[in-house]
Amino acid sequence: MNNYYALILCGGSGTRLWPLSRQLRPKQLLSLNGKETLLQQTAKRLLLHVPAKNLFTVTHEDHKFEVKGQLAEVAPDAVANVLAEPFARNTLPAIAWSVDQIYQKDPNAIIGVFSSDHAIDNEVAFIGAWQKAETLAQQDYLVLLGIKPDALTTGYGYIKPGNKIVDGNMPVFEVAQFIEKPELKLAKQFIAKGYFWNSGIFVFKASIFMQMLTQYQPRMASQLSNINTDNFTETYASFSNISIDYGLAEKADKIAIVPVDMAWSDLGSWESIYQKQAKDEDNNVVHGDVFIQDTSNSLLWSQSGVLATMGLNNVVVVQTPDATLVCDKSRTEEIKSLVERIKLHKAELAETHLTVHRPWGTYTVLAESTNFKLKCIVVNPNEKLSMQMHNHRSEHWVVVEGEATVIKNGIESTLQENQSTFIPKTNHHRLENKGNTPLIIIEVQCGDYVGEDDIIRFDDQYGRTEN
Amino acid sequence: MNNYYALILCGGSGTRLWPLSRQLRPKQLLSLNGKETLLQQTAKRLLLHVPAKNLFTVTHEDHKFEVKGQLAEVAPDAVANVLAEPFARNTLPAIAWSVDQIYQKDPNAIIGVFSSDHAIDNEVAFIGAWQKAETLAQQDYLVLLGIKPDALTTGYGYIKPGNKIVDGNMPVFEVAQFIEKPELKLAKQFIAKGYFWNSGIFVFKASIFMQMLTQYQPRMASQLSNINTDNFTETYASFSNISIDYGLAEKADKIAIVPVDMAWSDLGSWESIYQKQAKDEDNNVVHGDVFIQDTSNSLLWSQSGVLATMGLNNVVVVQTPDATLVCDKSRTEEIKSLVERIKLHKAELAETHLTVHRPWGTYTVLAESTNFKLKCIVVNPNEKLSMQMHNHRSEHWVVVEGEATVIKNGIESTLQENQSTFIPKTNHHRLENKGNTPLIIIEVQCGDYVGEDDIIRFDDQYGRTEN
Repeated sequence: MNNYYALILCGGSGTRLWPLSRQLRPKQLLSLNGKETLLQQTAKRLLLHVPAKNLFTVTHEDHKFEVKGQLAEVAPDAVANVLAEPFARNTLPAIAWSVDQIYQKDPNAIIGVFSSDHAIDNEVAFIGAWQKAETLAQQDYLVLLGIKPDALTTGYGYIKPGNKIVDGNMPVFEVAQFIEKPELKLAKQFIAKGYFWNSGIFVFKASIFMQMLTQYQPRMASQLSNINTDNFTETYASFSNISIDYGLAEKADKIAIVPVDMAWSDLGSWESIYQKQAKDEDNNVVHGDVFIQDTSNSLLWSQSGVLATMGLNNVVVVQTPDATLVCDKSRTEEIKSLVERIKLHKAELAETHLTVHRPWGTYTVLAESTNFKLKCIVVNPNEKLSMQMHNHRSEHWVVVEGEATVIKNGIESTLQENQSTFIPKTNHHRLENKGNTPLIIIEVQCGDYVGEDDIIRFDDQYGRTEN
Repeated sequence: MNNYYALILCGGSGTRLWPLSRQLRPKQLLSLNGKETLLQQTAKRLLLHVPAKNLFTVTHEDHKFEVKGQLAEVAPDAVANVLAEPFARNTLPAIAWSVDQIYQKDPNAIIGVFSSDHAIDNEVAFIGAWQKAETLAQQDYLVLLGIKPDALTTGYGYIKPGNKIVDGNMPVFEVAQFIEKPELKLAKQFIAKGYFWNSGIFVFKASIFMQMLTQYQPRMASQLSNINTDNFTETYASFSNISIDYGLAEKADKIAIVPVDMAWSDLGSWESIYQKQAKDEDNNVVHGDVFIQDTSNSLLWSQSGVLATMGLNNVVVVQTPDATLVCDKSRTEEIKSLVERIKLHKAELAETHLTVHRPWGTYTVLAESTNFKLKCIVVNPNEKLSMQMHNHRSEHWVVVEGEATVIKNGIESTLQENQSTFIPKTNHHRLENKGNTPLIIIEVQCGDYVGEDDIIRFDDQYGRTEN
């Protein structure tokens, strides 16, 4: 069992669940159905079958600290296994690079690859199918979990099963054909014919995967074999932007599908979030400070402030501190194009929230003007920001909760609640929380320029002196 | 012409245009259709016929400074004529108290009474009808402007005209009957029969009004004749909560109606705001940072943050920093009950905005916790806050724009941009802007209690040392 591994793909652009998800905070990092984030739920589910030290996660460099922070809460031994991509390059490069690293450590590894943002309510069925897939992987198959459709949808790719490889109450088939997201009419036919949804969950021997990569994507395999710390970034940049489906699975001869009915959803739209959540008597999903009157079949989600509705049906409203979406519930798949338009005019609204996560905690922009910016900074216990300076802005800090350790030009001092300090521009400074409770400070930045990029880091425990 | 007066009724609960309007900022104080507020538009319209010194405004004590500030911009000579009610007591007490004061100064006054929150697009027709009403008032009539209906609506009271008093191209009728907001079927019949909408605009001789008050509301007339500075508040509190329609107009024998077609609207609902505004090609009214896709016949109003919509029709969305309304456009008359419910749970959301107007400028609450509160304070040029102290909170001030004059325990100092000061609790202090540009400071309050009522005022140029 020690050669069983799980690899979590933790990428995603954050557009489909906008405005709650953003580029720097895609849906797998959000709590959508409970206290834990989708990533944490995924990790816990995988730990039912593999030990944390065999759980790997591949994510974008931008999300590395957040991913590690979330894993630390549910799978501490998996924190060291977080692999950070310098660029998002679709699923095949991410998987190939990760599998290669596992393979080098354990040539006998059998690896399952999982999305970080899916809901799977029937964990017993899931684990059963995964184990079944592993037995097929032992026989050198590239194995895919196929979901038995429980609704008519055009939102998923379909798989046509071929010959039966294994009989019994959990049969296994060859894959006859991969079909991209179909039209509604075709989807209906596919379901009638017993096709399955493509779950994106693969299981394989690492050695077989590497063989297949060499066979079907020889250029990528060769690039990978030559990768090293010196050429890492440029090599990664040159990987083809290709999915595992298109680049490997559709080409493979020995590919099997394990059908499973596990109450699965890819939570790919607000409509699918709506489907998964508990409803009130009028079939509404309500989250946060929401007042409704004569409203039905709607998703009403407020992350900030009060949301009041009247006379609505089949509507999705999602309210965040800086953006609100109001959308016909049957059309939430189309949000992407709307977000693309917003991105053209207000890029920051597609990229970040007002609250930004950092390895040491968070900051929230409370007000901003051309010559000042106001932040609420939360430093987690025993964390510290980098030693840094700014060329254009001075900073006024007021401690409102906890105790701050401040270094200014080499001199350390301690600030209690209701104490303040001033950091003139070009002054080298560092903020640290040596306490056991969160430190909250209000920071008023003043200067001719208050952009985030006016920062020079001299020493950083998170290795961020480069950017 | 010097005995022609106008009285603006500037009351209102602020519920019907929630969340943009609040109790402390009702719709007449908002800019809804242009740069000027409805109050300012009303004042300018009345100045077409009366001089500013003959323009009186009656409002609630809570709105006094804001009303004066708004009038100062468009009718400086009317600022001294702002009358502040200690309690809201419906239209008759407000009018009677105001008329009595004008009457005492000018026994020959002829007074027009106007709402502060109506739209009147045809000013020529309006002034013509007002002047016509004044000629009837000279003949001791209580005169009412009647609006020729231009839409089928149940949102207004109707007036059945009686005998024709004056013939010609602007005929005048006796009033046969007042009818409360009718059912749709009845409204249809009324319009077919040539009934008019009750505009709420009255014109009368002050002397005749006082006579009628004595005749029909003898108790109120007597209370009014005995009112003085000592008993003012308790007398006002004891006035009947009664409208001029019910208390006087419906009882009066000598009452006339001047019909007028002046593109009038009482802007009493979001639907009526929608009707009055310019539309885009899909018949949407769009205000603020709004991104729409496949959306039509809707009012999309963002005061703060981005609003994005997709696949909507006939919907009203109004977004403010702390509350958003999403409502079927044909049902905006029903908002009142929704706001009543919100008020029960979150009173502050029905009463105030995050930005609060003060005689000296504004403050905006940017963040709040149990032990700290963060404000952005804007002090207008040449204004100062009261000399004050707080028992529970200390304050940190950082100047981010302009120059602050600060008095702390009797010592005056000046703070420039990027300078800060600390006001320990119980310290007597005052903030002043002696400059010609707005002063903006960020205030961080720390203490065991940070409620607005922890303030003791010692000296205040706006006379607020009592509260």
